[in-house]
Amino acid sequence: MEDTLRNKETQLVESAMNIIINEHIKLTHSINYNEIASMIPTINNAKNIFVIGAGRTGLMMKASAMRLMHLGYQVHVVGETTAPAIEEGDLLIAGSGSGTTSGIVRAAETAKKVGAGLICFSTNNTSPLATMSDQTVVIPAAQKQARDENVSKQYAGSLFEQSLLLTFDALIQTLWDLDGSTASELWKRHANME
Amino acid sequence: MEDTLRNKETQLVESAMNIIINEHIKLTHSINYNEIASMIPTINNAKNIFVIGAGRTGLMMKASAMRLMHLGYQVHVVGETTAPAIEEGDLLIAGSGSGTTSGIVRAAETAKKVGAGLICFSTNNTSPLATMSDQTVVIPAAQKQARDENVSKQYAGSLFEQSLLLTFDALIQTLWDLDGSTASELWKRHANME
Amino acid sequence: MEDTLRNKETQLVESAMNIIINEHIKLTHSINYNEIASMIPTINNAKNIFVIGAGRTGLMMKASAMRLMHLGYQVHVVGETTAPAIEEGDLLIAGSGSGTTSGIVRAAETAKKVGAGLICFSTNNTSPLATMSDQTVVIPAAQKQARDENVSKQYAGSLFEQSLLLTFDALIQTLWDLDGSTASELWKRHANME
Amino acid sequence: MEDTLRNKETQLVESAMNIIINEHIKLTHSINYNEIASMIPTINNAKNIFVIGAGRTGLMMKASAMRLMHLGYQVHVVGETTAPAIEEGDLLIAGSGSGTTSGIVRAAETAKKVGAGLICFSTNNTSPLATMSDQTVVIPAAQKQARDENVSKQYAGSLFEQSLLLTFDALIQTLWDLDGSTASELWKRHANME
Repeated sequence: MEDTLRNKETQLVESAMNIIINEHIKLTHSINYNEIASMIPTINNAKNIFVIGAGRTGLMMKASAMRLMHLGYQVHVVGETTAPAIEEGDLLIAGSGSGTTSGIVRAAETAKKVGAGLICFSTNNTSPLATMSDQTVVIPAAQKQARDENVSKQYAGSLFEQSLLLTFDALIQTLWDLDGSTASELWKRHANME
Repeated sequence: MEDTLRNKETQLVESAMNIIINEHIKLTHSINYNEIASMIPTINNAKNIFVIGAGRTGLMMKASAMRLMHLGYQVHVVGETTAPAIEEGDLLIAGSGSGTTSGIVRAAETAKKVGAGLICFSTNNTSPLATMSDQTVVIPAAQKQARDENVSKQYAGSLFEQSLLLTFDALIQTLWDLDGSTASELWKRHANME
Repeated sequence: MEDTLRNKETQLVESAMNIIINEHIKLTHSINYNEIASMIPTINNAKNIFVIGAGRTGLMMKASAMRLMHLGYQVHVVGETTAPAIEEGDLLIAGSGSGTTSGIVRAAETAKKVGAGLICFSTNNTSPLATMSDQTVVIPAAQKQARDENVSKQYAGSLFEQSLLLTFDALIQTLWDLDGSTASELWKRHANME
Repeated sequence: MEDTLRNKETQLVESAMNIIINEHIKLTHSINYNEIASMIPTINNAKNIFVIGAGRTGLMMKASAMRLMHLGYQVHVVGETTAPAIEEGDLLIAGSGSGTTSGIVRAAETAKKVGAGLICFSTNNTSPLATMSDQTVVIPAAQKQARDENVSKQYAGSLFEQSLLLTFDALIQTLWDLDGSTASELWKRHANME
């Protein structure tokens, strides 16, 4: 890095980045990796996989869905144009920090009713969403409105959303390892018209 | 209808609606239904169907994609999260009034390069998109910026966009007739989580 | 039109198109244009306009939102990335054939709770959505699952969705007439980066 | 953490997570925080902010756009329904690992042509996108197809995409610090209809 004048804004950005990274280092010690590993057979046995999430959490679920598609899974994002009905034998993976977002809880109820599997990523395992899930991956990050500076100094659900991306990418990396495909085999599935 | 005071705004709306309907009646005489019917075997033989369009035209292509999914086709919207790469044996259906939108022309080039089929809906059959297409459905409605009041009094590409919806829905209705499924069989595929 | 062989598929497509056009001609006689015209002052007085709809109805609401943006209104699509919270003085325009879709009914409740206006497009004025709306535009087309061949021979909510597009475009055309802007003034607002 | 049986899959997931975190720790030492801090006055002076990105990078740009909206900026995602034309005085923030994605390069050209500002996030500062940008934030992570195991063991552009989220969130946190608003003031802007 060049020898640059370290002004106030630069120091604030660097400090914010260090806070973010440290919060993730701390989280790695409280995540239960068994919970994530347990998703592997469920994902491999699902007919179709659906993902759902609201706001920034929804964007992270979409990022995960795109990678699952690259790996060759049949995957749909709830709410996108060509997502069909969920059926018995399918799997819904829901992301929700609070586990209470009503649109997501109702989708989860539909999934259970038709006999599909249900996995959730959440900050706790006592919410309506988590209690109805077959498997819950707990990411012990603050909820959006229940800010606790001991858990995260970041705004709203940022730590949860970031950790959802990193955690799901660790799962993706594992699915890829177990699958044994080369990067170029996966690359062929990447969207080639945008 | 109640006996209401017909004020200026009400008259303007009714008059606008009559203009719109009359433009569509006129269009039905200049559409070549053979062009649309020719899409049927192409659609039925495609492995995966992709649709693409920009702006409001893109929204109409999405509406068509949703119905193709209801009918049981494997269909993707270019740019949505889980759309994979297009491959040989697949089909791209592109909507573009002008047939010159660069992102769509490049997508069409990719489709041709990989050996996929290419159908377009356009206002003419001489554009870059139409000339590279295997089949073109011409909807003789004014282009967005080449407004000709003899063709449409509506703003920009509205007549084309509306007619794209109606025309594609006529095709959908025909595919459904030929398929013989009941409405309740199709209904089972409708998204059940929103 | 060229002298083409009129095979079975061509006849089916042409016949489907005639059915569609005739259903719209019939609808123009049962729409109350006062209901649509009454939206004009409400739209003009709104601070921010939000639109919402599910499935194909949602796509038609997006097409309408795009045109409202072209006309210079501050408009957002519920669920898109940068849509903020709805507030007092804002307006929610909801499209729902049945008027019962739960996500839309809840959004409407939120709109009312914060003191925003609520307009709906629906097939009837007795649904939960319509009864809580300040103004309802009734499009007397069959609901998705209550198919009545006397109302429409088309699949599911197609007639409603098409008519929503045409009806809202008649309103847009009227707003444009009243505004007095030229097409080129509006054209400057069209997205220039896609 | 409970005393759980550490099977192979669990070890793989934990190992993948450690690789991911270590790659981010390493990146924090090679990011130039001045580049990020330099965005602050540009963002504060922009009339409208537009963001663009393809694939997972696009999803991370959307996550950033949502937070900019929460902070009170006028922000649009290129390609979403109500995004208007970019104009002089506006700002385009583009994310692209390679800096060569054609749709993004063309959008950047449009931004420059109309007199808007242009900032990019990229893995290098020599690409077409970076060379035309007013400011570039270099995230020295491997490009999608130029995989270098010394830079990242992760699949494709994952490290870039994750770091884009973390880096932009560090900027967001700084903008929030400088702004002085409380979390509850920002919370009022969060979408309340989904």
